[in-house]
Amino acid sequence: MDVAALNALGFEDFVAIFGNVVEKCPLIAAAVWSRRPFDNFPALEAAFSEFIDALPNSGKEGILRCHPDLAGRDLQSGTLTPESREEQARAGLDALNSAEASLISQLNQDYKRRFEFPFVICAKMNDKATILRQLLERVGKDHAEERECGIEEVKKICHLRLQALMLHKL
Amino acid sequence: MDVAALNALGFEDFVAIFGNVVEKCPLIAAAVWSRRPFDNFPALEAAFSEFIDALPNSGKEGILRCHPDLAGRDLQSGTLTPESREEQARAGLDALNSAEASLISQLNQDYKRRFEFPFVICAKMNDKATILRQLLERVGKDHAEERECGIEEVKKICHLRLQALMLHKL
Repeated sequence: MDVAALNALGFEDFVAIFGNVVEKCPLIAAAVWSRRPFDNFPALEAAFSEFIDALPNSGKEGILRCHPDLAGRDLQSGTLTPESREEQARAGLDALNSAEASLISQLNQDYKRRFEFPFVICAKMNDKATILRQLLERVGKDHAEERECGIEEVKKICHLRLQALMLHKL
Repeated sequence: MDVAALNALGFEDFVAIFGNVVEKCPLIAAAVWSRRPFDNFPALEAAFSEFIDALPNSGKEGILRCHPDLAGRDLQSGTLTPESREEQARAGLDALNSAEASLISQLNQDYKRRFEFPFVICAKMNDKATILRQLLERVGKDHAEERECGIEEVKKICHLRLQALMLHKL
């Protein structure tokens, strides 16, 4: 999609295309549409980041809480969004042995008990080993630091999803 | 559901239950969970309203843009959320004659062209006649006034959806 095509989108088409670049948060794409016209792809991406950064902490934690567990119930039951399914599969999370699956499940539970939001990481920029290492490391961080870390991962996921859509749609 | 049961919900269950009290905006329920414990039902409802009021104007317009047209494409194609389908049916919008359908469709288009968000009204507190009257009247308002008017309707919808869930779930 070129920038002219992007800026010509009405809000319904824009939300249909970009509504899940932040997982299950079409509200964000719908708000970002107010910022058009976009000069280029980085300006579009910056509008998403700026909207996220302006949210109160509860809103940032709300974004994290809209994400599925990695290698969790939604992966097993086939209820992931198509984007998440592809990303988790790419990182090898759909092919864990039972020891790995039970370790990651335990760590996810510990993490959620501590922070009250799920562990979010850009799976496409990682693999099974680095995801486990990050999970072990991040579960020990403090609350505010870890909220920001999760939000930075949301932005990386958003970057890759936006890039794929700009390359392949329209 | 009583307040003790409400306050005992983890975020996953909370979002599964309340994720659509603001249409297609589970982010808001996920953020509101941070505000627990809730003293009572009005406190829960107030937490939703306060989150919405604290959003920038683009975020408020984003909420409106996550709503379907009344008697629009989603009603005809069966892709409304269950809550919206029931509300639109209750107001008689699933049984318009062709003159009514084409009038409301034209007014929705005019409204969206003018305001860049869709006409939102609490269908359950209205019927076909009052919805048409409101649409005719509100399409002439100014932009900021109409954004606030739409958001007040979102809060009425939220109130009724929360009330139904508190009465019937758990």
